[in-house]
Amino acid sequence: MSTEELEVMPQRECVRLLSTNHLGRLGVVDRDVRPLILPVNYVFDDGVVVFRTGRGSKLDLAPGSPVCFEIDGWSAGAGIGWSVLVKGTAHDVTEPRGMPTSRMRNLPVRPVAPGRRDHWIGIEAEEITGRRFITNAHRRT
Amino acid sequence: MSTEELEVMPQRECVRLLSTNHLGRLGVVDRDVRPLILPVNYVFDDGVVVFRTGRGSKLDLAPGSPVCFEIDGWSAGAGIGWSVLVKGTAHDVTEPRGMPTSRMRNLPVRPVAPGRRDHWIGIEAEEITGRRFITNAHRRT
Repeated sequence: MSTEELEVMPQRECVRLLSTNHLGRLGVVDRDVRPLILPVNYVFDDGVVVFRTGRGSKLDLAPGSPVCFEIDGWSAGAGIGWSVLVKGTAHDVTEPRGMPTSRMRNLPVRPVAPGRRDHWIGIEAEEITGRRFITNAHRRT
Repeated sequence: MSTEELEVMPQRECVRLLSTNHLGRLGVVDRDVRPLILPVNYVFDDGVVVFRTGRGSKLDLAPGSPVCFEIDGWSAGAGIGWSVLVKGTAHDVTEPRGMPTSRMRNLPVRPVAPGRRDHWIGIEAEEITGRRFITNAHRRT
């Protein structure tokens, strides 16, 4: 990291961060064309984000629609910030119909929030982008 | 917190969390009616979320549009999770035209990310909602 601007994060680093984190945020558009952001526990594996949900906005709005999924991090101690954004289409994979939905349905998605979450939703990533920066105060060079 | 479901968070607690945090996420809808989630540093004061930005998606898509703004937290040690969602309309308040825009323009918004962020965007909250939970493993009763 050597510029003073936000840096484009390499794809492999975006994938590494998606694979090693398990709390992110789903972005959907509601029926009034307003955005919603809803936190979810997830698993990322081989180009798909999978989360579980019960009845509510996520189940009403995500399946069959273009959605996004975001993770980010900020370490005040290290002065490092980053974010990854996945764009794709969501599918209800609760009842798998062969690959790749059966693979998604079998990923170990473990919500920490209480409540029934019987529906499994998979997002097939069409685009994965990331940005990162290190603040000048923490730069060694 | 005494149920096993997600609990609706009292409004005063949503406001306290918005006031004491400074990193959140803007939700916007792009021209193809796809959602985007973009992290921002912000200040919340008396019903408005204010952040700064330079050229790009936030400046192109937020002003004049319905947007949302989200913060969340998860403490694995305490087993507590929460999120707050603000819905409202964004306005470019870089050139204030009297109150309330001049008040927004003077809030101490300090982005940690590098880069020029000459535009000040204010979101007037029309709705503020929050959810929280404590996992059973950490419940004392």
